Amino acid sequence: MTVWLVGAGPGDPGLITARGLELLRSCDAVVYDRLVAPELVDEAPVGALRLGREPLEQEQINRLLVTLARRGLDVVRLKGGDPFLFGRGGEEALALVDAGIPFEVVPGVSSLAAVPAAAGIPVTHRGVSSQVTIVNGHGPLDFSALAAAPGTLVVFMGLSGLADLAAGLIEHGRAASTPAAVIASGTLPEQRVVVAPLGEIAAAAGDLDPPALAVIGDVVSLRELLAPMPQVVAA
Amino acid sequence: MTVWLVGAGPGDPGLITARGLELLRSCDAVVYDRLVAPELVDEAPVGALRLGREPLEQEQINRLLVTLARRGLDVVRLKGGDPFLFGRGGEEALALVDAGIPFEVVPGVSSLAAVPAAAGIPVTHRGVSSQVTIVNGHGPLDFSALAAAPGTLVVFMGLSGLADLAAGLIEHGRAASTPAAVIASGTLPEQRVVVAPLGEIAAAAGDLDPPALAVIGDVVSLRELLAPMPQVVAA
Repeated sequence: MTVWLVGAGPGDPGLITARGLELLRSCDAVVYDRLVAPELVDEAPVGALRLGREPLEQEQINRLLVTLARRGLDVVRLKGGDPFLFGRGGEEALALVDAGIPFEVVPGVSSLAAVPAAAGIPVTHRGVSSQVTIVNGHGPLDFSALAAAPGTLVVFMGLSGLADLAAGLIEHGRAASTPAAVIASGTLPEQRVVVAPLGEIAAAAGDLDPPALAVIGDVVSLRELLAPMPQVVAA
Repeated sequence: MTVWLVGAGPGDPGLITARGLELLRSCDAVVYDRLVAPELVDEAPVGALRLGREPLEQEQINRLLVTLARRGLDVVRLKGGDPFLFGRGGEEALALVDAGIPFEVVPGVSSLAAVPAAAGIPVTHRGVSSQVTIVNGHGPLDFSALAAAPGTLVVFMGLSGLADLAAGLIEHGRAASTPAAVIASGTLPEQRVVVAPLGEIAAAAGDLDPPALAVIGDVVSLRELLAPMPQVVAA
């Protein structure tokens, strides 16, 4: 009876960790996020319980994990990206601590660097950026501090608040010409990338659908050299 | 003839991605960083070339990758953490582009969230931190902007410059009482964790050895609840 908080990675099912996959293949129950690849949920044993978290509020998920574990089940809580980077894994971990349930966090590949990489953008690069700031697009945001931060800005859930974010950054001193990109469905076959100056990025990304991640900073210009990267299918 | 820039993850060999492991198991040559787990290098096929990058400068590594690929080999460049988050993968990718060599980036689990997680620290947590700033401890650092950034500060290569970093942050307005942690050899059996207020962290971490990552911010306090987490060995 254990709960593993497992990061499923940014979308591409091949980006789960070896350990996460091993745990998934031997669990009694998997509780999965909507954005987790169906191929990964299929890796659970035939007889395992498969529970989508989608209709549930966070508090209900916490209780569900406790309930399943108390029935003696080994539970994989399969979360998009990494459990502890905008994954709300800390809340689930605290609920398990409160209930006295043994648990372990198995980190995952965050969208943070993986999604920009899939668009040909390194979030750090010698001589271009040696600092990264990560925020959630739903805010609240301190635009003054954010506009002053050197380096790369990465915005999770970057679509809905993008116009306000860009306007706020420019109002507080970031150049409207700063390179920016929005990547929707990053690392998946349906990935779409829009690149535009910060002052125009919200309009340019207007017809993208979530999930999306925004990248703002000079590293975006490296995409001209690094993408489209030669696409290779593994033998 | 392809070069794969593969993230090996933060230390624990189980944290490589499924796709990275698959590529490693079928490559002709692996060029690996010193901090990559020996168990991973051992996953390369028996006849594969195994080349430690350690004596080489970055420019020499770039040339080595091009040379190996031009001999027709499938090359895995196995890098600690993630290739594009303080991994200098962008430089290697540019060298491959210049030489016309097909390549692909396979992202990895960065130390960013995985190493704090292994110490019981979520880098974001509802109501505590919704922003993360990542810097390299070797600087140069804009202390004014850094001290003003809300949320969590994560410092890669966080040991050698730690005293200057803490002093700079405090001088520019961060409270000396801000919770801080340094995690050495994170995710490995020899992991060590030191927790202290920002004003005392450099002295407290004085006898740790690299590699180490520093975390500064209120999320460090969650460790009291979340660590030592019940340690579980997979069946």
